[in-house]
Amino acid sequence: MTSDQLFEQIQTKKSFLCIGLDTDLSKIPQHILASEDPIFEFNKAIVDATADLAVAYKPNLAFYEVHGAAGWNSLSKTVKYIRTKHPKLFIIADAKRGDITSTAKMYARTFFQTLDCDAITISPYMGKDSVVPFLDFKNKWVILLSLTSNESFSDFQMIESKLSGKRIFEEVIEKSSKWGNPDNTMYVVGATRAELFSDIRKVAPEHFLLVPGIGEQGGSLQDVARIGMNSKCGLLVNSSRGIIYADSTERFADKARQKASLLQQEMEQILRNKGLLH
Amino acid sequence: MTSDQLFEQIQTKKSFLCIGLDTDLSKIPQHILASEDPIFEFNKAIVDATADLAVAYKPNLAFYEVHGAAGWNSLSKTVKYIRTKHPKLFIIADAKRGDITSTAKMYARTFFQTLDCDAITISPYMGKDSVVPFLDFKNKWVILLSLTSNESFSDFQMIESKLSGKRIFEEVIEKSSKWGNPDNTMYVVGATRAELFSDIRKVAPEHFLLVPGIGEQGGSLQDVARIGMNSKCGLLVNSSRGIIYADSTERFADKARQKASLLQQEMEQILRNKGLLH
Repeated sequence: MTSDQLFEQIQTKKSFLCIGLDTDLSKIPQHILASEDPIFEFNKAIVDATADLAVAYKPNLAFYEVHGAAGWNSLSKTVKYIRTKHPKLFIIADAKRGDITSTAKMYARTFFQTLDCDAITISPYMGKDSVVPFLDFKNKWVILLSLTSNESFSDFQMIESKLSGKRIFEEVIEKSSKWGNPDNTMYVVGATRAELFSDIRKVAPEHFLLVPGIGEQGGSLQDVARIGMNSKCGLLVNSSRGIIYADSTERFADKARQKASLLQQEMEQILRNKGLLH
Repeated sequence: MTSDQLFEQIQTKKSFLCIGLDTDLSKIPQHILASEDPIFEFNKAIVDATADLAVAYKPNLAFYEVHGAAGWNSLSKTVKYIRTKHPKLFIIADAKRGDITSTAKMYARTFFQTLDCDAITISPYMGKDSVVPFLDFKNKWVILLSLTSNESFSDFQMIESKLSGKRIFEEVIEKSSKWGNPDNTMYVVGATRAELFSDIRKVAPEHFLLVPGIGEQGGSLQDVARIGMNSKCGLLVNSSRGIIYADSTERFADKARQKASLLQQEMEQILRNKGLLH
């Protein structure tokens, strides 16, 4: 998918919502546990209930890998299901891998071919070698961690370079935006860092940003949109638990839809106010 | 495994060799491809041929994940085989994950419980939150990327902090050595960075270092040992392709043993010269 196609989807759905599939057996409704593949069944129900309200889904790899090969099967079935049933959705493997050259190439094959995702999240610590192998895959994306939503983000990301005067998250964006372009590279920027979105937009005016951290973690959708939005929207705002665990009864999918719908309506209003809808 | 137990194994085997299981179907001998699980069969043969010469094995996750659930099965069988047949070996999941809190905990469960590895490699970009969840598991280890062996290592790792005057790889070691200790934390330091090993040892005198990059990548075992070794050895030096792909005929395991043996002999001499053998 190109950035234009993604923006088109955002305009069609009137939403820049990404739904995180952090599917945890200890949190999904009891009645699903009896099914043959509870993780897949849960994901399927969530996706079917929310697919018209979201542009992207983001399975978090850890929640699948913890079940070994069985978890990979559930993940693979989920991705195939989305691809088949809802072909225009953007699928992000939230894998946070970060390895180099031939290993990075293997990860690219894993997530872009074996699994057929559109994008993978990547940790940039090892530099260019850990990013470039992913950029050879046409219409696929790397999403680099830059300024994350967690408490300890400042341990390394906020360190200021003596030479350039830039902080590490800015160094990551500046350097990597020369390896790729706004059609194959995005950045993870936490909603809890709204005060820094304008600094991010100085170095990455055109790139899409994947934004976790609204809701429970305290980030504000309004703040993020006000400072972070560009002329092609440029934002995918993620919500995971707030949507998928809204309810633990047999009505969980309806409740998930209600929560997603509230966010979609807020997003539609924002897009409209910015003049980004036809 | 504690650091004392690891040092004991190093003294028993007279070796600080780690063998990387980057098992690639396009590189393993043709005759194995006909077996039901070629990756496992190859690993089994390599491990059986070299287990008395090495203290650690390091499966590289990308090479398994690229085959989806089937690859995870091969990996799981490999780890179980090593655990059962050679119970004193140290098993490192070279996974380079880097996520936070509940996700990091899931990864810890994946690699320490579902797979029963001793250690996992981690990218430190997200800070303390991405490390601490692993430290709650007794006798298990995190191995943090600090100064890597690849060409683009300097993109971010060598940036000097305006505030502290330290480079990012030193910041990673200094900060993280307060979160954990030399019994649950190691660092990845590339053999190609031998000139910086003395700086590493200033901030991490007691920690074990996992050292890739000897052989093909140009690092020197002698230089690494001369500058990096401490009183408990403190080094696990990795070789992957140089050993496991030494030969592509039916004699591949014997040839792998020969290559591993050459390294073991050089390591034995180094340990002896340093007075670390009984």
